[in-house]
Amino acid sequence: MINTDILIIGAGPTGLFTVFEAGLLKLKCHLIDALPQAGGQCSEIYPKKPIYDIPAFPEILAGELVDNLMKQIEPFQPGFTLGERAETIDKQEDGTFIVTTNKGTKHRAPVVAIAGGLGSFEPRKPPIANIVKYEDHGVEYIIRDPEMYRDKDVVIAGGGDSALDWSIFLTDVAKSVTLIHRRNEFRGALDSVEKVQELKNLGKIELITPAEVVDITGTEKVEAVSVKRNGEIFNRPCDHFIPLFGLAPKLGPIADWGLEIEKNAIKVDNSLDYQTNIPGIYAIGDVNTYPGKLKLILCGFHEATLMCQSAYQRIHPDKRYVMKYTTVGGVEGFDGSKKEAPKAVVKAIE
Amino acid sequence: MINTDILIIGAGPTGLFTVFEAGLLKLKCHLIDALPQAGGQCSEIYPKKPIYDIPAFPEILAGELVDNLMKQIEPFQPGFTLGERAETIDKQEDGTFIVTTNKGTKHRAPVVAIAGGLGSFEPRKPPIANIVKYEDHGVEYIIRDPEMYRDKDVVIAGGGDSALDWSIFLTDVAKSVTLIHRRNEFRGALDSVEKVQELKNLGKIELITPAEVVDITGTEKVEAVSVKRNGEIFNRPCDHFIPLFGLAPKLGPIADWGLEIEKNAIKVDNSLDYQTNIPGIYAIGDVNTYPGKLKLILCGFHEATLMCQSAYQRIHPDKRYVMKYTTVGGVEGFDGSKKEAPKAVVKAIE
Repeated sequence: MINTDILIIGAGPTGLFTVFEAGLLKLKCHLIDALPQAGGQCSEIYPKKPIYDIPAFPEILAGELVDNLMKQIEPFQPGFTLGERAETIDKQEDGTFIVTTNKGTKHRAPVVAIAGGLGSFEPRKPPIANIVKYEDHGVEYIIRDPEMYRDKDVVIAGGGDSALDWSIFLTDVAKSVTLIHRRNEFRGALDSVEKVQELKNLGKIELITPAEVVDITGTEKVEAVSVKRNGEIFNRPCDHFIPLFGLAPKLGPIADWGLEIEKNAIKVDNSLDYQTNIPGIYAIGDVNTYPGKLKLILCGFHEATLMCQSAYQRIHPDKRYVMKYTTVGGVEGFDGSKKEAPKAVVKAIE
Repeated sequence: MINTDILIIGAGPTGLFTVFEAGLLKLKCHLIDALPQAGGQCSEIYPKKPIYDIPAFPEILAGELVDNLMKQIEPFQPGFTLGERAETIDKQEDGTFIVTTNKGTKHRAPVVAIAGGLGSFEPRKPPIANIVKYEDHGVEYIIRDPEMYRDKDVVIAGGGDSALDWSIFLTDVAKSVTLIHRRNEFRGALDSVEKVQELKNLGKIELITPAEVVDITGTEKVEAVSVKRNGEIFNRPCDHFIPLFGLAPKLGPIADWGLEIEKNAIKVDNSLDYQTNIPGIYAIGDVNTYPGKLKLILCGFHEATLMCQSAYQRIHPDKRYVMKYTTVGGVEGFDGSKKEAPKAVVKAIE
């Protein structure tokens, strides 16, 4: 059982910044995210895209934003349960909640902050009848560890940036890389498309277009895929089949937690503390809704900040927290670190 | 008459970021501030102090924060009326407001956003009976243009960072610099105190402590100050007397605009759009209050963002604005500039 003060579901920008604001209040945080790394969409979907509306950054890449936030929260030593999806929540008699993931990891906290963005990102799967049977046995929708493909025969399907970029990357790792797409045209960054063209010319990527994978064969694990091109079906031996058709957000199991849902988002009290209809459960960032809601990262930062104050009151009903400005009081990390402005001296001039 | 879409009172971080969010909605902004430069407290009071709780900045100097915001809003070409205090507001028959400053400059806009921080910063004045007579005639409480003091005899009073730093700075400009303080001890950054000690030893700053200025003499303008030390009063000829006793925020004339005030702050509707009790007048940032309000810069950014959406509806009641992400749609400046993420290409691989 992992115990913490605030259990944060979702490790995107809003979830990460919550760790900082909670830390200022001496509250510890633990984050759960279905993706294999922190940063949410910013890391998984568009790490190299610029964002222009983060205050005081005329331009920042989404990946840099996440790096900065990770650095900012480092003193508060958050815990992470990554690559697991929060599945169930159970309220205990003592008022705490136990959240269990799809892999059975249990977390207990008096406050739960859902910072789930648009939901957990689930891969779009190709319509292949027996694909589920091969999941984790040669079929992967997200590449978690490229080393897994060392000296293997790999078939990638897809026509976007993910398919292009991983095809390029894996030519240095895999024994062979085959890229299958249902059109001749690919949609992605110009240099990625050109690089794949170059690697194809060098014989390092085999391209099969316009085509699609229609079947998978193998006893224990993937041994081959069936490829359909121009009405003709042929067999393609391989160790791994990686369909990269994008990720689609789904609110997922959270939708069954008894929370008031409106338009696929969780209703919260924006006039006070972004609490849901269940006391002790808050929803912040893109996952929530209220009159005038804007799904912007900067709004999530504000919501996280106000939410932490309310969480503090819930966790310490007898204490009164007096806000101190970081410029005045500095930041004391749980790791013993201390950042603060140089102090003024009082000194006589002789 | 200066005409604009959103008239922003206060050019601190919240006011500045409002220009950006308004700009995304193609609304023009003009800012009024009593201080001689943009940035509010961050520029005037603590430009060199680090702030630790701006999201995605593990540490940023207040002055840098302002510089970044100025750069971010540059494409939206805001207008500025600086060094003037918004004094009166008059609602016109057409629903617009006219705001007039203490110097008579008039501004007209359909929406007014008060981003006034803790109020306009008014200098703390020493208790010298006739000091008002010499204001702008040799007595200055804020140094707006150091060149004004070239080859002049200057007397500075005060014992904090401003008094120390300006004394140091003016040794290179003025004919003579005298620093008067009622104690021997100064309170400020260690290197400032040490630098003044050094300049005193070199004879470039004359120090009179413990002492205070008790009277000012001169026919048209300051010609001398009377200094009291150890019960004895003596005359000190000078061209300028600059008391730097700090700035204290005062809500000021805004308090008489008919807005609902609570604890020296303006009440707003935080459940929707941070509008005040007067439709068309919003209050954002430290100047407002609502249940759970935190006077943090990051909260001002959020409030500004939601407020701009409401302002858009007020200015364009017939249009429906559909929010576009800057990552997707980029930023189009009023100056013809365009920033956007590199576009994906659709390209065949042969």
